[in-house]
Amino acid sequence: MSGTLYGVGLGPGAPDLMTLRAARLIGGATCIAYPTLAGGQSFARSIAADLIPAGIREIVMDLPMATERRSAQAAYDKGAAEIAATLETGEDVVCFCEGDPFFYGSFMYVFSRLSGRYCIEVVPGVTSVTACAARAGLPITARNETLTILPGPLEEDVLRKRIAAAESIALMKVGRHLPKIRRVLTELGLADRSVYVERATLAQEVILPLRDAPADAPYFSMILLTKGTDPWL
Amino acid sequence: MSGTLYGVGLGPGAPDLMTLRAARLIGGATCIAYPTLAGGQSFARSIAADLIPAGIREIVMDLPMATERRSAQAAYDKGAAEIAATLETGEDVVCFCEGDPFFYGSFMYVFSRLSGRYCIEVVPGVTSVTACAARAGLPITARNETLTILPGPLEEDVLRKRIAAAESIALMKVGRHLPKIRRVLTELGLADRSVYVERATLAQEVILPLRDAPADAPYFSMILLTKGTDPWL
Repeated sequence: MSGTLYGVGLGPGAPDLMTLRAARLIGGATCIAYPTLAGGQSFARSIAADLIPAGIREIVMDLPMATERRSAQAAYDKGAAEIAATLETGEDVVCFCEGDPFFYGSFMYVFSRLSGRYCIEVVPGVTSVTACAARAGLPITARNETLTILPGPLEEDVLRKRIAAAESIALMKVGRHLPKIRRVLTELGLADRSVYVERATLAQEVILPLRDAPADAPYFSMILLTKGTDPWL
Repeated sequence: MSGTLYGVGLGPGAPDLMTLRAARLIGGATCIAYPTLAGGQSFARSIAADLIPAGIREIVMDLPMATERRSAQAAYDKGAAEIAATLETGEDVVCFCEGDPFFYGSFMYVFSRLSGRYCIEVVPGVTSVTACAARAGLPITARNETLTILPGPLEEDVLRKRIAAAESIALMKVGRHLPKIRRVLTELGLADRSVYVERATLAQEVILPLRDAPADAPYFSMILLTKGTDPWL
């Protein structure tokens, strides 16, 4: 009988913001898998580090820099094949994912390759959206308000249209798209309502009004805003 | 010195989907607070039940049925006053919230009353959106896709317009709004792509194609859909 593949969300970064289930699965793992970027450290692995049993097998999926789509697919192909070979022996594999596996998570790429062939359990995690809101002290959505999640790499006119039509908004993956996003928010008169959050819940966390956000925002940064008056008062 | 108020997200329902931080705070609590609905059991308290130390103080905020807005505000006023009185003695209070405190969470109403006056730490939790996606095996959003969260109680024409304009969608608080939502999704040709999830991660969990969803959906139900082809393949 084949092993089970666990796609485990590790939350936004602080190790104690992973779930009890994630911690139990990691502590009992004999084989883990995770992505790295261009030979660098794995953020996901760093979140789980203190819980990983010594000497267990580690399947590393090394991804090229973001824009090389075909090579990324090849890295996931190779990783999925290694994971499948392990599952075939009856061993379970615990695959790490920052945040939540199905919310912009790298685990989707493994899931799409192995779904239907093996038993897969997805363990949801705390997303960066609510972690940023918690850290910024900004209740992001209440009652019958809508929340729109927008990736920063979207084209400027698409962003403008979607931001104009939305109520509460979380802009993800800000990074080098910060000037474009700031321009759109300023045009729409929303810049002064916007909060910039970088590396939420980690020691290097930064929380600033958008106007003070640094020019060199990292990939793991977000902008949050609400348009409403405080409807919960 | 005043105590600290912790607004703790408990996740979608399965007790082991709370975070390690939430579990530690509950296990060390001397005073907890949580809402109940019309004298019923507290769902939030039931998630945490096994971790609550025996004999500690419990502040119960009993809310009337959903539509009586003014009485709900009065219940939060009273609860916030009790919490404040406890904090004044230097004691910490751990306030429970299903899901995440700032994502349609009841804790917002306590936060708005005590913010600025006391030290408040918000502990994010796993939201029902990603819990439902995980349980339904539906990667909800990848790459540069957008995700729109819509509350089911919205007016039919508002829902139609927002659903038509969105990409991936999570419809929250479905309950008695199911017929209206199903009508809109059918009109838009999206019903066959939609998944219905009820009480995700609990023993009573139900996951069905939308066409098979029960007429008497509970408040804790959700509809998920993605419009794209699978972009992660």
